[in-house]
Amino acid sequence: MSKKFVSILMGSDSDLPIVQNAIDVLKDFGVKVEVKVTSAHRTPEDTHNFVTDAENRGCGVFICAAGLAAHLAGAVAAITTKPVIGIPVDCGPLNGVDALYSTVMMPGGIPVATVAIGKAGAKNAGFLAAQILAVSDEELSVKVKEQRREAADAVRAKDKALQAKLAG
Amino acid sequence: MSKKFVSILMGSDSDLPIVQNAIDVLKDFGVKVEVKVTSAHRTPEDTHNFVTDAENRGCGVFICAAGLAAHLAGAVAAITTKPVIGIPVDCGPLNGVDALYSTVMMPGGIPVATVAIGKAGAKNAGFLAAQILAVSDEELSVKVKEQRREAADAVRAKDKALQAKLAG
Amino acid sequence: MSKKFVSILMGSDSDLPIVQNAIDVLKDFGVKVEVKVTSAHRTPEDTHNFVTDAENRGCGVFICAAGLAAHLAGAVAAITTKPVIGIPVDCGPLNGVDALYSTVMMPGGIPVATVAIGKAGAKNAGFLAAQILAVSDEELSVKVKEQRREAADAVRAKDKALQAKLAG
Amino acid sequence: MSKKFVSILMGSDSDLPIVQNAIDVLKDFGVKVEVKVTSAHRTPEDTHNFVTDAENRGCGVFICAAGLAAHLAGAVAAITTKPVIGIPVDCGPLNGVDALYSTVMMPGGIPVATVAIGKAGAKNAGFLAAQILAVSDEELSVKVKEQRREAADAVRAKDKALQAKLAG
Amino acid sequence: MSKKFVSILMGSDSDLPIVQNAIDVLKDFGVKVEVKVTSAHRTPEDTHNFVTDAENRGCGVFICAAGLAAHLAGAVAAITTKPVIGIPVDCGPLNGVDALYSTVMMPGGIPVATVAIGKAGAKNAGFLAAQILAVSDEELSVKVKEQRREAADAVRAKDKALQAKLAG
Amino acid sequence: MSKKFVSILMGSDSDLPIVQNAIDVLKDFGVKVEVKVTSAHRTPEDTHNFVTDAENRGCGVFICAAGLAAHLAGAVAAITTKPVIGIPVDCGPLNGVDALYSTVMMPGGIPVATVAIGKAGAKNAGFLAAQILAVSDEELSVKVKEQRREAADAVRAKDKALQAKLAG
Amino acid sequence: MSKKFVSILMGSDSDLPIVQNAIDVLKDFGVKVEVKVTSAHRTPEDTHNFVTDAENRGCGVFICAAGLAAHLAGAVAAITTKPVIGIPVDCGPLNGVDALYSTVMMPGGIPVATVAIGKAGAKNAGFLAAQILAVSDEELSVKVKEQRREAADAVRAKDKALQAKLAG
Amino acid sequence: MSKKFVSILMGSDSDLPIVQNAIDVLKDFGVKVEVKVTSAHRTPEDTHNFVTDAENRGCGVFICAAGLAAHLAGAVAAITTKPVIGIPVDCGPLNGVDALYSTVMMPGGIPVATVAIGKAGAKNAGFLAAQILAVSDEELSVKVKEQRREAADAVRAKDKALQAKLAG
Repeated sequence: MSKKFVSILMGSDSDLPIVQNAIDVLKDFGVKVEVKVTSAHRTPEDTHNFVTDAENRGCGVFICAAGLAAHLAGAVAAITTKPVIGIPVDCGPLNGVDALYSTVMMPGGIPVATVAIGKAGAKNAGFLAAQILAVSDEELSVKVKEQRREAADAVRAKDKALQAKLAG
Repeated sequence: MSKKFVSILMGSDSDLPIVQNAIDVLKDFGVKVEVKVTSAHRTPEDTHNFVTDAENRGCGVFICAAGLAAHLAGAVAAITTKPVIGIPVDCGPLNGVDALYSTVMMPGGIPVATVAIGKAGAKNAGFLAAQILAVSDEELSVKVKEQRREAADAVRAKDKALQAKLAG
Repeated sequence: MSKKFVSILMGSDSDLPIVQNAIDVLKDFGVKVEVKVTSAHRTPEDTHNFVTDAENRGCGVFICAAGLAAHLAGAVAAITTKPVIGIPVDCGPLNGVDALYSTVMMPGGIPVATVAIGKAGAKNAGFLAAQILAVSDEELSVKVKEQRREAADAVRAKDKALQAKLAG
Repeated sequence: MSKKFVSILMGSDSDLPIVQNAIDVLKDFGVKVEVKVTSAHRTPEDTHNFVTDAENRGCGVFICAAGLAAHLAGAVAAITTKPVIGIPVDCGPLNGVDALYSTVMMPGGIPVATVAIGKAGAKNAGFLAAQILAVSDEELSVKVKEQRREAADAVRAKDKALQAKLAG
Repeated sequence: MSKKFVSILMGSDSDLPIVQNAIDVLKDFGVKVEVKVTSAHRTPEDTHNFVTDAENRGCGVFICAAGLAAHLAGAVAAITTKPVIGIPVDCGPLNGVDALYSTVMMPGGIPVATVAIGKAGAKNAGFLAAQILAVSDEELSVKVKEQRREAADAVRAKDKALQAKLAG
Repeated sequence: MSKKFVSILMGSDSDLPIVQNAIDVLKDFGVKVEVKVTSAHRTPEDTHNFVTDAENRGCGVFICAAGLAAHLAGAVAAITTKPVIGIPVDCGPLNGVDALYSTVMMPGGIPVATVAIGKAGAKNAGFLAAQILAVSDEELSVKVKEQRREAADAVRAKDKALQAKLAG
Repeated sequence: MSKKFVSILMGSDSDLPIVQNAIDVLKDFGVKVEVKVTSAHRTPEDTHNFVTDAENRGCGVFICAAGLAAHLAGAVAAITTKPVIGIPVDCGPLNGVDALYSTVMMPGGIPVATVAIGKAGAKNAGFLAAQILAVSDEELSVKVKEQRREAADAVRAKDKALQAKLAG
Repeated sequence: MSKKFVSILMGSDSDLPIVQNAIDVLKDFGVKVEVKVTSAHRTPEDTHNFVTDAENRGCGVFICAAGLAAHLAGAVAAITTKPVIGIPVDCGPLNGVDALYSTVMMPGGIPVATVAIGKAGAKNAGFLAAQILAVSDEELSVKVKEQRREAADAVRAKDKALQAKLAG
């Protein structure tokens, strides 16, 4: 059986600098990723067709990034029963609070797994997608745990550098 | 040519007490109204079919009421090019701020004419739909202006009652 | 019968860069536009006279842009029974949340069709005004639908460019 | 020369329970008060006529109470150059934050002296109006200072009661 | 291989009425659930031991519910690399906005899949957990899709009842 | 009798660029102004002595500017019974919402006449102080009305310039 | 040397039900407590005298509870250099967000140790005061640690009861 | 007996510019400080070990700085019964409101003494830690009082400079 992959949708190509953080995390884990610009409002039928097709081709998790009245994740979650992760993007005057509420406050029955607004959220969308696939993928699970250890080591290295600096 | 009518969609039948305020306003103006329970997320295809069909049958304005991450108005605005009015409903712990942001902060190209959260907004959705149809319906325009005068008189009557009470 | 036109009012000429987005959209549709700097508070009588006169001269829709305690749209809506669209402008320390609340939370009877804060909202004010006039203007209705198709094509083009870039 | 009086305007008679707090404070100071129900949006001309007339008859301070997109205080401040005090009323789903922003965030040139949302604000509107008139009314100034002392004594009495209760 | 189960943790037994919504959804899908009262702050070691043990015993997804400065989901996400779903509970004066921010705004590396505040969120935590397990469980996947169809039918039934009521 | 003057207090000399707007307005009206840097928290006794002394020397209105947990206006209002105007300053990460709430939400008995956050508010503090003094100063009242007319003319001039630009 | 005691101040006797939570915690620890109703605004001199006197009599920590534009904790912190704990009280339409910002956003130099809004915060004010005194009071330190263990046991007892209920 | 010291923890070394304000204040008072980079989520065990060890070595007060869903202070407060001061850091799109709520809204039993968001808060964390240690350290208490006098003098110097500038 071939590995599940992750489909990443964004409402506008201007969201790519944010979304890139999710792509990078998944590529580091060796997870196959496909990326799509499509709009819940401007190209609803394309969105529907892409999601249905992706699910048939073996997509295991969807990640959707959108700003303002961010409907993309909810619209995708209405099409598929695969897990959908929503990244609220902090474009516009409300700094992403609008996107957060539009993404997380989904009514009962159509969940969106929402992560933090902006860059930190995009990174975590990548980690969360990997964790979801790792539930049934032991090889990936080992990589996820290994990454955790490396992240802990990175914190320790920063502390060591700080202590050296303060002692210096 | 037959008169345009107004289609009112709500995400859940629990929104009816709010929506009723819009229905009442439009009925008082003699505007034909049809009401539909349909969900942007649970029944997206039904929503699509209803909106397309309503537009073909002569719907001039859509009114959509939804709470929480209220996507219904935006989803309808993505299907039709008729004006779409959104009523943010104040259900849930955020008192409708989530529904307001999800309804009003639409990205460029797909406008939703947003009114106030809750009951006052539902009334105004009715008035706004009537005003939109009245742009090309002189008879309705006369009624709208007449209603304005009556509303002014109602304020005056309340003031008179207050003065009598204070004098008494 | 001559075509209805759109009157755009702004509280300060500093709002022009935002308002220009609405003007551009309407000009692209071939809708006649007139623009006016007038203040609900500093020149209330000028505002009253301009609105009354515009309505008499065939204005079909008013668009009002204002920041802070943005009263302009509400003040215009109190003068006319034509549809009034409000653009909350994100000037000042509250980033337009003050203007949004001052514009959208209108009491029952005097609706303001509110769009998003800032630039996206200004664009949508133009689209919404065109949609309202298009309810009774078949030629304009065709143009609005055509623009929707072009916007969808623009999303597709951006996706194509992204795929090329990722494949490259 | 006759004493200046205070005109209190409210957008709806449902605001009277809040407004009554201001009336009571002013009556206790022996300040003459007149009360008016009038709407910035439903009866803008009545509002204009009342304010102009009140100013001519010797009104020294205006107090305006309104909820939601509370424009009344700003509309009155645009008509008169007498000080205008605004009470944001906490009706509606946003608990008066909308009314606060609509009242306090006035653009440069047309100030509204804003007090707290709701009952505490209404009381303080009464105290503030009295303080403003007392700037040139020595007799009233004495009463205002006396009330301050009584309020301090009331706090002391409450502390005394608490100490007795705790000791008991 | 035995089926994966879901561990549901709550910070206080007063959260049970909210959490019950997640339990009910999962039981309807036939997913095995275990429930634990444990606090990130009062019993951090118990929390650590329970999570480590649950992961070893075959827990596939953790669900954590907490209010106020809701750290439970983040604390659990720091212990395990299984997906962690966070339900912000709307207890306390801030209506769950504090719990939402404390749950969703996780720094990069430790994701929490956040759902809506309160009851709707708890239901969706159940649905999301089932969707995650269904990525590798075809039988469960069929049930999830079937539930979607039933939910759509329920919306249609409500619409039918509304039409009957309006026609009656 | 000599004219009343206005005392302007600021919590930090970093507030001067904001406060300067109030000073300029008052100087344009020929109102005498004195300015003082004093802190409600760092120099409470100096604040007390300055306010008491200013009141004795003929201060008619106090203006206080402060940011963050802005207590200065409330502290001054507790010392004097002259009207106190509060300017919330938008320094710090909360953009002045903290200063607004700390200034406007005063408990019953100790009013602070609050104006908008930041620069617009500082201008209006100057206008409001002039309006308060003008209640009993006919000469100043004439100047205030004249300024209003000039402000209206300035709006008209901006509109004229815009029309010329658009026609050009 | 006699033990340090804790002085608890509240702006109004209506805050007692909240403050009682702090009193109860401290009494359980055997810490001596005195309680005072005094207002930063209505009785500033009493507040000053009480705080100065309390510090001289051996007060080690002050706790201040106030709602709305809650200045009491900041005012006390300006008088004493003993640690001051502020409890924001959730009275009024803003649910204590105003009190939180007024208490916590203190400018540099005059800290207020702020706890959660309302009842949970009042409890924690008691625990925090005890922890501060316990820094130099070994006997109290032992009691504080013992209470922690009991609180952990209480969580475990609730979990046990839940497991019994679920098993039953 | 040796002096108590202060342990300052930060979630990321990017918080150092904020934290430095606390370090500087404490060094000026001659209080011994140790600084540690450790994460509640990435290195929970290191955090636990460091805190337990610091308490054993004589740490009297902990200061924790973190942004976003800032759990560090709460996590530390769950480990120790020494007073824990939390600095909410204003990184990320929500400007520190998320960190403020995550830090201050702690449930009953585990208090965090929260100071203002960002730089002002970091300074005050230093002052508050000194005040807490000074409860039982007369020498430090004298220094804290002396610093207060100097801060007052600094305000007076700024006022003097302003008066000179205005007179000039």
